[in-house]
Amino acid sequence: MNKSNKRSDQGSKYYTLAGLKISTCCSGTKYENRDDLSLIVLDPGSNICACFTASTMPSAPVIWSKENNKKAQNLKQKIVLLINAGNANAFTGEDGLLACEEKASSLSSIFKCERKNIFFASTGVIGEKLPHKKIIQHFSYLQKNLSSYNFTNASYSILTTDLKPKIYTSKFKILNKIFTLSGFAKGSGMIHPNMATMLAFLFTDFAIDKETLSVFTQKAVRQSFNRISVDGDMSTSDTVFVGTTNKIPLKITKDQKAKALKAFYAELKKAMIDLAKKIVLDGEGAKKFIEITVTNAKTATIAKKICFSIANSLLVKTAIAGEDANWGRIIMAIGKTKINLKIENIKIYIQNFLLCENGKAINAIDDTKLSLALKRKTVNIKVDLGEGVRDFTVWTSDLTEDYVRINADYRS
Amino acid sequence: MNKSNKRSDQGSKYYTLAGLKISTCCSGTKYENRDDLSLIVLDPGSNICACFTASTMPSAPVIWSKENNKKAQNLKQKIVLLINAGNANAFTGEDGLLACEEKASSLSSIFKCERKNIFFASTGVIGEKLPHKKIIQHFSYLQKNLSSYNFTNASYSILTTDLKPKIYTSKFKILNKIFTLSGFAKGSGMIHPNMATMLAFLFTDFAIDKETLSVFTQKAVRQSFNRISVDGDMSTSDTVFVGTTNKIPLKITKDQKAKALKAFYAELKKAMIDLAKKIVLDGEGAKKFIEITVTNAKTATIAKKICFSIANSLLVKTAIAGEDANWGRIIMAIGKTKINLKIENIKIYIQNFLLCENGKAINAIDDTKLSLALKRKTVNIKVDLGEGVRDFTVWTSDLTEDYVRINADYRS
Repeated sequence: MNKSNKRSDQGSKYYTLAGLKISTCCSGTKYENRDDLSLIVLDPGSNICACFTASTMPSAPVIWSKENNKKAQNLKQKIVLLINAGNANAFTGEDGLLACEEKASSLSSIFKCERKNIFFASTGVIGEKLPHKKIIQHFSYLQKNLSSYNFTNASYSILTTDLKPKIYTSKFKILNKIFTLSGFAKGSGMIHPNMATMLAFLFTDFAIDKETLSVFTQKAVRQSFNRISVDGDMSTSDTVFVGTTNKIPLKITKDQKAKALKAFYAELKKAMIDLAKKIVLDGEGAKKFIEITVTNAKTATIAKKICFSIANSLLVKTAIAGEDANWGRIIMAIGKTKINLKIENIKIYIQNFLLCENGKAINAIDDTKLSLALKRKTVNIKVDLGEGVRDFTVWTSDLTEDYVRINADYRS
Repeated sequence: MNKSNKRSDQGSKYYTLAGLKISTCCSGTKYENRDDLSLIVLDPGSNICACFTASTMPSAPVIWSKENNKKAQNLKQKIVLLINAGNANAFTGEDGLLACEEKASSLSSIFKCERKNIFFASTGVIGEKLPHKKIIQHFSYLQKNLSSYNFTNASYSILTTDLKPKIYTSKFKILNKIFTLSGFAKGSGMIHPNMATMLAFLFTDFAIDKETLSVFTQKAVRQSFNRISVDGDMSTSDTVFVGTTNKIPLKITKDQKAKALKAFYAELKKAMIDLAKKIVLDGEGAKKFIEITVTNAKTATIAKKICFSIANSLLVKTAIAGEDANWGRIIMAIGKTKINLKIENIKIYIQNFLLCENGKAINAIDDTKLSLALKRKTVNIKVDLGEGVRDFTVWTSDLTEDYVRINADYRS
């Protein structure tokens, strides 16, 4: 067992949370010389909620956690969350569910909590049986090494083809109290709205009931993780967990409460958008971060559909990789949605350069300036439909030869 | 003007058609040292019909030809079809339509035919103004050089990023008469059902009225070009033209006629499937030809949706490029359609190896044999849903680093 290669939160800016402990190790199920198993334990009195993939082929841990997410957890007991990387435990049939059962039995007796207080997340190859007995062997080590200072280790341990960990940490003040929100995410390929292969974990000490936290989580996910796309593929495993230790309550009036909740939601959304963008920036082979905004659409649905048609177009993504302002491919991506639009109203901007209007190209473009602007790491594409007042924004990455190389080789 | 680099049909197996003449030249609008302009002229008495892209951003030639396709052509006059490569004349506003107008005026006076007998097809970059005056300058050369032996030259002249021409030619017997069907196609990127950047031209001498030919064309396109996908992108320019010189009529009874039409439809469909597969095989950077079949679905729509979800999944396409039987990614692609299925009924086969059933992996797989089978150029993926009796098949290619390289560099 390799228990080495640990990193310390000390020196990093990770804000810890009273009532939340983490430990990590190398499970020996897939990777060598790196941690791939994380255990997160929240003190009694905590709440946790989650938001899951829309895939109809969910992994065993998604099925398990979804079931428990519907239940009220036993507040007198600890909440336990186990994450492994390298094997998604997806499409593994009864074996997959049995693996969850047996891991839960063991964790339940170690941490003296009901099974409904136990959650799982797995990421990795689909269809391979999870060697869960190997994983269970590490539980006593993980228990002994729980610490408040393991955020950094956990953020590394959940990675697969990601190049680097994606972390978020902040302190914010609401009604003169200081709260903490810290989290980490993974996600590289299979990134499409509805949270394709991505996992995210966010923890706070802001006291909030499970129901409200669930509503906030769903809403913030729609504003963040569901607006990103790396390759249009959606995984079987995606999950966003949000937990609170409830350590810092606000004793306040009803009016103040509404205000405080609104302020907390803003912080949660900010954290999720930050992690979502970091996932895109670390997309497989990605060299550019692309923000696509469709404005002045008749409906938000139209704006969203066109945004994703552009974001998922291989021809658009390769053009951006080639630093080519090939707006014709954006027109193509709009056209293939089959949405009827007034062509003469459409304006397309890349890096704020207006490239077409009145149904045709703009002639007076400073190609040198545009070419220089396209060399930037962040590329903005704006499509003004000129038909209404609704808009939508998505974030994606370019498509490079590295994406293909990474994904052709991933399993071997 | 470069009028050289001509190839002769003689020596090739291209069957010519009485009443159909072609000439090609280099227009000087985009390419050097290669022909990129083709003129096809059908004798009076011919019929032509076409099937167009579903894009809501159609090119000017698509708008023009669609309009004329609705009309009955003047049978006493010639039918003229002009094709250029390098500039799609798409999203060019009034300039684009004016270019069609002026080309048509010139062709109309040269060939003494009404404007409704004139059709256009263009392929290439979107959003650049078509230098149509340069094109018109070549009309008298094209007229003088019309020949029955220019199929090969035309098949080359329509290419953009294609690696090679895609041709089809056959002779077939119906009720003891010999007919000919010859054609060619282009298409490389933006290949998605509804005929993304592809053009196809098929010509026969089988006598058939325009209405029936139109019905047959629409139907055969659904069975062929609308079942292929290279990158999920749909172009603004796709068109399939089918023309007949009507030179060989069948004088037959009503019963015989139905039989003859059925036989002709089978030949037309065969030709389109052949060209469609050739487009996939020549897809940008493609190294593998992938046939995806979904069987035993409840409805054909479900089978089709799952087929295309698999065919357009970057992760599936890169896995096949990497010769990896990563069926987990097929499960992912099925799951992201959000269609509810009985997971335990699903069987996935790659190269006829059953890889999963009863909701999990098959253990007893001969990895060496499977690995060897994946090295073949043609890869078969079969998904048996075990829920009904409907099926669907699509053809696609793998996704390689070359695709990205080609599309990042295309315009520059």
